[in-house]
Amino acid sequence: MPNPEHNTDEDLRTLAELLEGNTSGLPEFLATMHAADIASWMQYGSEQDIETVFRALGNEARADVFEFATYEVESVLVPLLSTNEMIEVVEALGVDEAVDLLDHAPVRVAEQVIESAEDERAEDLRRLRSYATDTAGGVMTTDFATIGPEGNIGDAIKALRQEDEHTIEEEAGLFIVDQAGQPIGWLSDRDLITTPIHTPVRDVMAEIPVLISAGEDQEEAAILVARYNLQALAVVDDSGALIGVVTSDDAGEVFEEEAEEDIRRLVGTSTDEQTHLPILTRVRQRLPLQVLTVLGGLVTAFILRISIPAGEASGSGLSSDVLRYIPIIIGLAGNVGIQASTILVRAFATGEVTPDRERTVFLSEATTGLLIGLICGLGTMVISAMMETQLENRVLFGSTIGVSVFLAVTWASVLGSSIPMACRRLGIDPAIVAGPFLITLSDISGIGIFMLSAHALLFVAS
Amino acid sequence: MPNPEHNTDEDLRTLAELLEGNTSGLPEFLATMHAADIASWMQYGSEQDIETVFRALGNEARADVFEFATYEVESVLVPLLSTNEMIEVVEALGVDEAVDLLDHAPVRVAEQVIESAEDERAEDLRRLRSYATDTAGGVMTTDFATIGPEGNIGDAIKALRQEDEHTIEEEAGLFIVDQAGQPIGWLSDRDLITTPIHTPVRDVMAEIPVLISAGEDQEEAAILVARYNLQALAVVDDSGALIGVVTSDDAGEVFEEEAEEDIRRLVGTSTDEQTHLPILTRVRQRLPLQVLTVLGGLVTAFILRISIPAGEASGSGLSSDVLRYIPIIIGLAGNVGIQASTILVRAFATGEVTPDRERTVFLSEATTGLLIGLICGLGTMVISAMMETQLENRVLFGSTIGVSVFLAVTWASVLGSSIPMACRRLGIDPAIVAGPFLITLSDISGIGIFMLSAHALLFVAS
Repeated sequence: MPNPEHNTDEDLRTLAELLEGNTSGLPEFLATMHAADIASWMQYGSEQDIETVFRALGNEARADVFEFATYEVESVLVPLLSTNEMIEVVEALGVDEAVDLLDHAPVRVAEQVIESAEDERAEDLRRLRSYATDTAGGVMTTDFATIGPEGNIGDAIKALRQEDEHTIEEEAGLFIVDQAGQPIGWLSDRDLITTPIHTPVRDVMAEIPVLISAGEDQEEAAILVARYNLQALAVVDDSGALIGVVTSDDAGEVFEEEAEEDIRRLVGTSTDEQTHLPILTRVRQRLPLQVLTVLGGLVTAFILRISIPAGEASGSGLSSDVLRYIPIIIGLAGNVGIQASTILVRAFATGEVTPDRERTVFLSEATTGLLIGLICGLGTMVISAMMETQLENRVLFGSTIGVSVFLAVTWASVLGSSIPMACRRLGIDPAIVAGPFLITLSDISGIGIFMLSAHALLFVAS
Repeated sequence: MPNPEHNTDEDLRTLAELLEGNTSGLPEFLATMHAADIASWMQYGSEQDIETVFRALGNEARADVFEFATYEVESVLVPLLSTNEMIEVVEALGVDEAVDLLDHAPVRVAEQVIESAEDERAEDLRRLRSYATDTAGGVMTTDFATIGPEGNIGDAIKALRQEDEHTIEEEAGLFIVDQAGQPIGWLSDRDLITTPIHTPVRDVMAEIPVLISAGEDQEEAAILVARYNLQALAVVDDSGALIGVVTSDDAGEVFEEEAEEDIRRLVGTSTDEQTHLPILTRVRQRLPLQVLTVLGGLVTAFILRISIPAGEASGSGLSSDVLRYIPIIIGLAGNVGIQASTILVRAFATGEVTPDRERTVFLSEATTGLLIGLICGLGTMVISAMMETQLENRVLFGSTIGVSVFLAVTWASVLGSSIPMACRRLGIDPAIVAGPFLITLSDISGIGIFMLSAHALLFVAS
């Protein structure tokens, strides 16, 4: 059984040892780990290790792991289950979590699993599967209890006990509905405990401040839950009848999704557990943003070329032609630096980077930046040499641009990962110096590197 | 009483009318509004209006409003309360919310309010005030119930009923503690309802997967709540004894704070209700980031000037000297564009910008960009004219830079607010095209504007 003083890092080391050596001790060891820690580890284990661990779990532990698993982990686990195993896991899950799991299974298998459930639950599963995942209907649960307005607290407790078999989300409380099934009041579990048993529910129920239709955006539902500080938001159909409940727990998950999306949009990649990903995966994930920047930079270089007459290299000086490539260089360096620092600031905050991992993380981030710099440098070298047809020494020119891009991007990734680390050591909040400050610093040093390497190449070539 | 079909926008219009005309109808109207809506309106009402509305509320409604109020709104409301009024409001609040409120009061007043509370509650208030606000101790509540491991479910229900007077956070459940006060198990309200009354608590209590010390970071606490999907996280003192509880609700608030901080760091300003702020406030909040960019851009311009020989303006052409200012121009335009689009994407998501407000919001954002552009344009005009001492026509040169900055920044703010709006109309998720795509577009158009205005000024001057 998990122990509150357990050391997650130590657990993970033991797990790694077991996976490398004799896996016969796995079931026993996994029983001492919390399902949340197992699910979290699965985010960055190899598919083969994930399968080994999952096969070593009993059916109940499997359901627990599913409860904590991310979408990506679920998509790896579901194909490992036979139809019968899936039926057992689905039975142990809340109806909304069961639907998320079935989304990863082939339609035929999902249908078999649903068929095998009790009638009422099968109907709930079918209904929930019919809503788009980003709507209120897609996040609600149909596991909730109701009672008419004539009952008393004793009746309400009875109604809740009957319904409770599958109700996993305790925040849902109990809804009071009228004859048309429309919600007219709500009682929390605490109300049921602290109110004398013969009190009519009508006398103590809370008013319902707001409702939502099943087809509305999931974010709208989450906002209403937060705005009115609700434990449970009633979801209604077109007739106004109660068909589901979005709990504060569901709302939290929606907000997490949306926050992650905000960050992804601003830095061009997800920050989730990036420091545990293989370096080549990180390069692949962050490269598309750089391609966009190179394309945009080439357009500006073209605009500048037709607007400004070609410069002339004086004896010891540098041609002003290279200036056209400033936007590409500082754009790429800024992107890569911000990606690295955002990922690290976030990783410090989530505890993903413990002090003993700092060196590994720094080196792997710098290598990621170096590889991105290498690819972008080679690309811009070739393209700029091809574009500048009017120049005498196009190869030297392209090399200047390429080498500068390579150095500036690598340096920016070093800045982007070392600044947050230095801040942490000095006890400064890394969030304060990241962002705008880093961009300004990487602009200045990028231009400095550009000029230095341009002069150096010119010197070597002459 | 609030009605689930109520129209918040209509409520706000009625409220504005009442505040302009006869305020005697206020108490009656406010009683129909939800406290959450009143607190939300207070975020952007004038201080005078906030005071008028607050004075029209009864003591109970005041406590409700405090429960939903942001830190900023609390800091306006607290000075309006007499000590006696504060005592009444504090009595109606949960102990952790009461402490937040007392943080805004002068020490002497806070001490008087605490003195007037019952002994046990006074002690809780003092203890909670002793923790830094960003620690687990600072977000926990001391309103929770405990029972020894020998009791049964009936005893647990009794313990909860006794403690419930002040317990507002229902997620806290009931902790089972040993003789040293150390938590050894937990029961949810639902467990108390669905378990037969004579069952020993030891047989049904949930294991406690993790604990936290009061001095640890609040974010660490929130992460544990989310990771282990807890309703209540036990906070312990150095001896391991239970002294408080962080609920899932508290954790949600910590995450909201942190997410807001992430965004603030990336765009240089808070996105909170920006579209309701006066334009000059928006300009003032977003300007510091631009000053940093201008300073960085001047350093790069200087590096470029000493690295590259001054260009020569040919007959009809443009001097390559202007190219040194590319980093300032695209940097400023990028910042302003990203600020506008991030604020709008977020404002759409929170429902802050209803379709009928779109035109107003667009115009006010464009005006904000125009004013920031004007200030930055004037600044860079003067500085660049002063810096480029070696040039013949420094005034014309400075004007070229200044006009380009002004036009590029204004245009970027138009792009930054119109792209998300266009996306919404077309049914595309605005989050997809914001960010990197906008930066690339604003880089290209910024350079285009720069070259066009440079040529135009040259033509006018010749």
